This record gives sequence, structure tokens and C-alpha cells, in this order.
Amino acid sequence: MPQEFYYEDFYVGQKFHSLGQAKVTAEEIKEFGNKYDPQPFHLDEAAGENSFFKGLAASGWLTAAIVMRLRVQSITVAGGMIGAGVEEMRWTEPVRPGDSLRTEIEVVGVRQSNSRKEYGVVRTRTLAFNQRDQVVLRSTVNFLAPVRPTA
Amino acid sequence: MPQEFYYEDFYVGQKFHSLGQAKVTAEEIKEFGNKYDPQPFHLDEAAGENSFFKGLAASGWLTAAIVMRLRVQSITVAGGMIGAGVEEMRWTEPVRPGDSLRTEIEVVGVRQSNSRKEYGVVRTRTLAFNQRDQVVLRSTVNFLAPVRPTA
Repeated sequence: MPQEFYYEDFYVGQKFHSLGQAKVTAEEIKEFGNKYDPQPFHLDEAAGENSFFKGLAASGWLTAAIVMRLRVQSITVAGGMIGAGVEEMRWTEPVRPGDSLRTEIEVVGVRQSNSRKEYGVVRTRTLAFNQRDQVVLRSTVNFLAPVRPTA
Repeated sequence: MPQEFYYEDFYVGQKFHSLGQAKVTAEEIKEFGNKYDPQPFHLDEAAGENSFFKGLAASGWLTAAIVMRLRVQSITVAGGMIGAGVEEMRWTEPVRPGDSLRTEIEVVGVRQSNSRKEYGVVRTRTLAFNQRDQVVLRSTVNFLAPVRPTA
């Protein structure tokens, strides 16, 4: 596998597994909740117990951010992974303190960019699993990858 | 307008504006980049100059997280705003240090939940603007709202 991926290196059916697992802590859940999603069930164990989530749970946007880190670590795009939109994202199980997350990514589409000739658009399906192999997030996300320069 | 919104309080065409603006700093961009999207253009001004973004730019997931905070501040759902999936999200302009973001939300769908009788699903279209009134993010996101309890 190449060190840095260009558009031409991606193909439908290609799979990438996260290099490691991301451990989620109560501290991270509360810190992110305080900053970006200040709702009781993301801030406090007792308040979480009396909520929809029946306990402290990560903001879905924290889960999405952790998944982005796992994606960036597992796919090295030349020049960086430039997001080109989310087609769908679902949070299918709560993420709890102590959970360890991993991702499986599959390329489901590759096409030349209409607006940027020097880029292609890679569409990926991502599944994020917890340590019990439950899917906690699934998404279809696009990113740009540069066309390999001719030497 | 009610203090806490139940399912019955939402209707198609209803609009919510963010209460204030969210100022984005270089520190926040770098801190979030370090934690969740460790790519040069989210970490360092000089590296950003030589990238797709031509300068330091916020991770799209930071923008999405800030938009979540603005959403939570502008719509108070009884029991909390429980995410029920993203239908689409697009990052349409880079977010830079010093930008101030605000949101406009429109309800585009309301329906009873199929799987949870005590909840409805509210579909919202969100536009996030910078201080130059450029759209930096647009999304279609669903959340749950509880059916009003009968007294």
C-alpha cells in the first residue's frame, strides 16, 4: 500500500480498519459536552440516569469527532483528508464512559470532481464499533483526494 | 412560545435563530484539531498556508460541534435534544480564526416516531453563517421530541 494515497489509489470495495481503539472517558464526555453540547445527559451521571440515555452518554458529535480521528489515522491522503460532505450519519447505540471505539471503512464510490479538476471525490461508508462489537455510529462521508501529479 | 418544546409545539416552516454568535479562535481550532482531526491545516498557520485551505482552518467537525451548541441554545426540547441522525451535511466555506458563527434553523418535517410511541421526530434544516453572511455549513438533522404528556 502506498504511504500517501492519491485519487487513483482508491477503489470501490477497498477497506480500512482503524489502527487502534479510542478509549472514551467520563472526563472527555463531560468536557466536550460542556463546550459543544451542554445537555444534562452529557454533563452529569445523576442527570443522565433520569434521561432518555439512562446514564452519562457521549454527545453524538463527540462520537463523530472521535471517528474522524480514527479515519485520519487509518487513511493517509496526500495533502490531507479534505471533507466533502456527509451523506448520512446515524447514532445507533449510546457511547458510554469506558467504551473503546474502532472503525471499519469501506470505499463505496470514486469519481472525478466536477468543480476541481485536480481532485477526485471518494465516498466511504464507516461503521464505528464499541468493545462489544455493537455499531455505535454509521456514516457515509465524502472526501477529496488529489489526482496523482504526472512526473 | 413555550419554555420547553414538546413534539406538538413544532411545525413545518417554524424558524429558530441562534441567540448569539460563536466566536472561533485559533486556540480552539488547534485544540480541537489536536484532539480529533490532527491534520496540518487544522494545527498550524504556516502548514495551513501550503495546503488546500491556504491558511489555518477549523475542522469541519469543530464547525459541526459549534453548530450543535448554537442549536441547543436556540431550541429547548423537553428532556433534551436527542439526535436522531444526519440526513446531509455540507461544509461550504472554510471557518477561520476570528470568524463569528450564527445559525438559522427551519423545521422541514414532523412525524410520530415509528419505534418510540412517546416521541416524535423533528427534521430541521440548519444554515450556519459567518460574520460576512457566507454559509459555512448546511445540514439536515433529525431530533426526537417527546409527545406532551396528558395531564
